Amino acid sequence: MVLDQVKKFYSNFIPLTEENWALLAPNFKVINLKKGDFLQKEGDRCNDVTFCNKGLLKAYHIKDEKEYIEAFFSQDEYLSDYCSFLLRQPSKLYIEALEDCELVLLDYEIIQVLYDKVDSFQKFGRLMAEFLFTQISVRNNSLLFETPEERYINFSKNRPDLIQRVPQYMIASYLGVTPEALSRIRKRILV
Amino acid sequence: MVLDQVKKFYSNFIPLTEENWALLAPNFKVINLKKGDFLQKEGDRCNDVTFCNKGLLKAYHIKDEKEYIEAFFSQDEYLSDYCSFLLRQPSKLYIEALEDCELVLLDYEIIQVLYDKVDSFQKFGRLMAEFLFTQISVRNNSLLFETPEERYINFSKNRPDLIQRVPQYMIASYLGVTPEALSRIRKRILV
Repeated sequence: MVLDQVKKFYSNFIPLTEENWALLAPNFKVINLKKGDFLQKEGDRCNDVTFCNKGLLKAYHIKDEKEYIEAFFSQDEYLSDYCSFLLRQPSKLYIEALEDCELVLLDYEIIQVLYDKVDSFQKFGRLMAEFLFTQISVRNNSLLFETPEERYINFSKNRPDLIQRVPQYMIASYLGVTPEALSRIRKRILV
Repeated sequence: MVLDQVKKFYSNFIPLTEENWALLAPNFKVINLKKGDFLQKEGDRCNDVTFCNKGLLKAYHIKDEKEYIEAFFSQDEYLSDYCSFLLRQPSKLYIEALEDCELVLLDYEIIQVLYDKVDSFQKFGRLMAEFLFTQISVRNNSLLFETPEERYINFSKNRPDLIQRVPQYMIASYLGVTPEALSRIRKRILV
């Protein structure tokens, strides 16, 4: 079933009774993106949190006409331009499908209602906010304190699937190095 | 009373009944720091969220023997090295008193108990995590997309008290510019 994965994801964080699930489930909206489609563009306001059933996306900003990748999202991951979502402000990010995607969306206004209506949904919201906070902090610290080589080794360890699925120049952008530097790092490591 | 400010702060986010406050209040710990004292150093694990009753602190990391200021905290603000706090990992940050401080601390383990014990504390936790997420995102975006001049103008607008209380070279560090560049910006703006 199309909501099985998102149900399992929620259950990992909160005790999800059948009663709670019955309140939650009708609110999800399932959409499909083709490779190259955008979930959002710079200037849009992010109105949903999104769960990825299938596929792969990249989130990036553009500065001086250059693309800087901030995150990849693939199957069973939770994604959002959470800053735009929380502040109700236009986004700085593009979120684009790198493969055909099936996504499960939950709307901002509905979420605000669910916080009060569904037992333990408040806790889910806290855990998600905490998770997204640690993600952004760990990435900041990685860019600040790790060498490009350490970043690549950690990325390979944590996201082995992406090494095969994502072009090298996008991984380089995500790691904050040039494609040439990434190529040298890979040669050093593989020797 | 020493807990009046923190009570008011919490009340701004959640309906704080007297019953809930009676459960919360005995868990706070009040400490005093002298100017130059550290709330934490790099390598420490952050075990508390902290509310500032009085005083001023800076959070910074050191790289290549240079200090980079990430945040200032003053009266009625909520502070934490939230990444270290959530992940239970050693911190990258120093948090140091720039003035004599009175701080109100709440311990990690106690907070986990309070989430289940006190009505609406779960919501407070969510709102704080969301607030801290937007803070880090807004700062990231400022460093990415704003000119140093825009950063200084926004800082002056949002934190007018700090312009008087914090030495220029620290403001420069926080804004990601050299003290000389900040001095030129100030001259241009004041003309």
